[in-house]
Amino acid sequence: MRRQKKFYAWGYADEDLTPAEIAAWEAPIASHYGLSGFDVTPPPRPDEIALRAPRLAAPAALEAIVRTDPMTRLEHSYGKAWFDACRMFQRSVPNPPDAVAFPESEADIVRILDWCDAVGAIAIPYGGGSSVVQGIEPTAGFDHVVTISLRHMDKVLEVDPVSQAARIEGGVYGPHIEDQLRDTPFTMRHYMQAYRCSTLGGWIATRSGGHYATLTTHIDDFVESMRVVTPVGALETRRLPGSGAGPSPDRMFLGSEGILGIVTEAWVRLRKKPAFRAATSVRFPSFHAGAGAVREIAQAGLYPANLRLLEAREALPGVPWSDESALLMLAFESADHPLDAWMGRALEICRDHGGTAETDALEGDNPQRAGPAGAWRDKFIRAPHYTEHAVARGILAWTFETAMTWERFPPFHATITRIALDTIRRVTGRDGTITCRLTHIYPDGPCLYFTLGGILDKRIMLDQFMAILTACTAATVEHGGTTTHHHAVGRFHRPFYDKQRPELFARALRGAKRALDPKGMMNPGVLIDP
Amino acid sequence: MRRQKKFYAWGYADEDLTPAEIAAWEAPIASHYGLSGFDVTPPPRPDEIALRAPRLAAPAALEAIVRTDPMTRLEHSYGKAWFDACRMFQRSVPNPPDAVAFPESEADIVRILDWCDAVGAIAIPYGGGSSVVQGIEPTAGFDHVVTISLRHMDKVLEVDPVSQAARIEGGVYGPHIEDQLRDTPFTMRHYMQAYRCSTLGGWIATRSGGHYATLTTHIDDFVESMRVVTPVGALETRRLPGSGAGPSPDRMFLGSEGILGIVTEAWVRLRKKPAFRAATSVRFPSFHAGAGAVREIAQAGLYPANLRLLEAREALPGVPWSDESALLMLAFESADHPLDAWMGRALEICRDHGGTAETDALEGDNPQRAGPAGAWRDKFIRAPHYTEHAVARGILAWTFETAMTWERFPPFHATITRIALDTIRRVTGRDGTITCRLTHIYPDGPCLYFTLGGILDKRIMLDQFMAILTACTAATVEHGGTTTHHHAVGRFHRPFYDKQRPELFARALRGAKRALDPKGMMNPGVLIDP
Repeated sequence: MRRQKKFYAWGYADEDLTPAEIAAWEAPIASHYGLSGFDVTPPPRPDEIALRAPRLAAPAALEAIVRTDPMTRLEHSYGKAWFDACRMFQRSVPNPPDAVAFPESEADIVRILDWCDAVGAIAIPYGGGSSVVQGIEPTAGFDHVVTISLRHMDKVLEVDPVSQAARIEGGVYGPHIEDQLRDTPFTMRHYMQAYRCSTLGGWIATRSGGHYATLTTHIDDFVESMRVVTPVGALETRRLPGSGAGPSPDRMFLGSEGILGIVTEAWVRLRKKPAFRAATSVRFPSFHAGAGAVREIAQAGLYPANLRLLEAREALPGVPWSDESALLMLAFESADHPLDAWMGRALEICRDHGGTAETDALEGDNPQRAGPAGAWRDKFIRAPHYTEHAVARGILAWTFETAMTWERFPPFHATITRIALDTIRRVTGRDGTITCRLTHIYPDGPCLYFTLGGILDKRIMLDQFMAILTACTAATVEHGGTTTHHHAVGRFHRPFYDKQRPELFARALRGAKRALDPKGMMNPGVLIDP
Repeated sequence: MRRQKKFYAWGYADEDLTPAEIAAWEAPIASHYGLSGFDVTPPPRPDEIALRAPRLAAPAALEAIVRTDPMTRLEHSYGKAWFDACRMFQRSVPNPPDAVAFPESEADIVRILDWCDAVGAIAIPYGGGSSVVQGIEPTAGFDHVVTISLRHMDKVLEVDPVSQAARIEGGVYGPHIEDQLRDTPFTMRHYMQAYRCSTLGGWIATRSGGHYATLTTHIDDFVESMRVVTPVGALETRRLPGSGAGPSPDRMFLGSEGILGIVTEAWVRLRKKPAFRAATSVRFPSFHAGAGAVREIAQAGLYPANLRLLEAREALPGVPWSDESALLMLAFESADHPLDAWMGRALEICRDHGGTAETDALEGDNPQRAGPAGAWRDKFIRAPHYTEHAVARGILAWTFETAMTWERFPPFHATITRIALDTIRRVTGRDGTITCRLTHIYPDGPCLYFTLGGILDKRIMLDQFMAILTACTAATVEHGGTTTHHHAVGRFHRPFYDKQRPELFARALRGAKRALDPKGMMNPGVLIDP
């Protein structure tokens, strides 16, 4: 029996934070802002949201795999961003899809796309629906909208133990990949916050970032080959460890966000389950001292699995806002060799930058789950559950991420911070907060992951929220960053992406799209216009 | 004063192998085939080759940067493959370019492309001219051909010591990059056999492979951003350490082989010059025993800089053909830390696979230049100089390379070997040789680099050569490999590439090309037809 997901927010319908968790989170926020408490809007019930009637009916031949009932359409209307939950709490869903199709094979997808073509419907490929950028949200202006959910195409089809790779269907959720690999020595280990409810095909379409801080940061690095069904037919790239034959076909589909076709399966690289682990956390007197250390570690070629730098006040309970220290989560893992030399040198670098290890380097099964790193890890995994409670209270609690080369990083960080604080103050009439963590570290720069905090006016909170997030995202692009490091462009980032990417690249991409999707039916609104 | 390159073969006009080198190479070949010696054709003089008169004259405004003299056009007619030298030795150059332009700026390139457009000429971007796949060779059927050499755009424009990157013009030769970095702590270290006479722009356009055996195998991994001049304008991608905003624009131009535009400059990642080195060579009883070791080393995440597996009979002088042993060049380097743990574990893996270290792991300035590794390295760097002498004698001595996942590697290797030997025997009427080395090692498979040997009939040797190389390359694609791992597609690989890449990808690429090069003037004949 498949668990029912919560239609209006992250996670499953049968799970929620405990009252104690909510209280422990809510009280410090109220105290920080001098509030006695919050007015709490109850979450929506499906019967409170009046959906437009479907403007399409499935032909008889597709009835078994197409649903048009209100609950299914409601579940597929929004992603899982703060602004999605907000609109759900406002009982506002003006543009649901008219139908949701659940293909069980490529042949089904072809039939569904043919049907879309015949009735003039646009098609929105749907993986786990965890988008935070309006990547799967139908917008107004189309007569017919069919969302195509891959959730029945969820098998690990083949494991190659010699090359350490697997052929996996596009619709499989993260945990179900690892479940199906359980009896093998292998793991994919492409974990991210949305891991539980996001799919391989979605990761490929959005260039997802996993928990590895170095080397295999993006799904791009895992993909050996893929199959894609486009409106003009299916294609399969060749399974190769490396090639120099023309521009990489895979790289054209990685990040294509459904505008070229639907990723039905891929060969992805696995690795042996780690047998050696070394992990610790290191305290630095300041965020920038820590940044100096992670830069040097990345440039040293040590390749830690985790190298995540957090402001202590963001990461740890009870740390006062005036505390400027930072905490580095540092971990190495290997299926092959002990990690003393690697960890030893990384800790030397940390010491050179003023860092103090919080614990001895831990070894054993799950050293990252102990100590401050473990506490933060738990918080990280639970974080998406807080969004609906923030929305219910009018609390601004959301993130955005970008990337920047090291030489511009300190002024860039300062500028984004200033713009965010100025904007929150201007929009909400009171001070808010912004913190930063570095989640992925390259030799030439970090991914900066910002967290915003503040108090909104519930009557106008959606407009306030959009004004704040828009200003912050616009600033990342205006000051040289990327509009997204690993959350995709979707519809939310479009205006910023349009400024970031060269216009001639958009023209080339439009040319490629026209060849594969001549009628422009695939996920219009993201990346480019026809 | 710029050194004059040899117009008919590899290298500079003022250099050649010594008579002793030639004798030491020629005698064992003659002996192997039971020949008393070779009939040696003298190399061509320019006045022996009658070139078609140029069908174009530069307009006055471009006269200073466009040349139409026979010598310049002759120099830009062919690349540096065996079949190129062969046609030069046959004094056969039926399709030289009509003019060669030498822009000194992007503005010059724009003016040259405008001129090409006005007179209906095709434009062939030209870096170092080291192509071995007819990548820069004008083919018949075009009324006007202008080759655009970037050789005057050869500066390192900017070095960013914090992010460890440099902005470099597209026309700079490999050694001149390192010359310009000499006063910095940095190096690019993207070395390949053609390093001396190939350019950054050419590397990007062809997805070159460097000497690093793991991680940064291709130029793709070095590129942060680039500038490209297309027939419809210039574009610049954004300098970022990582991004997930749509399909990577850089990856569309990496490997585009001049069909979309001309790469005028790029930001590339540097690294600190290595301060720690550890290198040795390891002897294995067989090639496949060695392959097992390199697979395990790659899957262990040790990331050696060198991990090159050679058949001893190919690599070392005096090894009899019956010797089945293999030699592994194994080296680690770092600017940051001693490499004992890395080298120690790699040698353990080698021992587990039956390997015996030939020398103690050497440390110091240039350990790779000592012992068997050093001997082979010297031979490797000198190798391109032998091609003209092989052609002069009708000796088949050439290579082709591909890549394959590990699980198919042994039968694939056996099949290609058998097809090559059968083809040489069928075509030449006598037995030839084929050896294999693994030059780049991925966790999921190696790059296989084959070397062919045999004796051709000088009267028909070009046809014989093409029949053999075509059969071998066709076999790599037919049996699941890539037509090229790092030598580009060019015109030679087109028929095999057409089978390898998905037809729908070609359609998409054509759509992209049409957007940037609506008249199809950029390097027609490679990758796709209009």
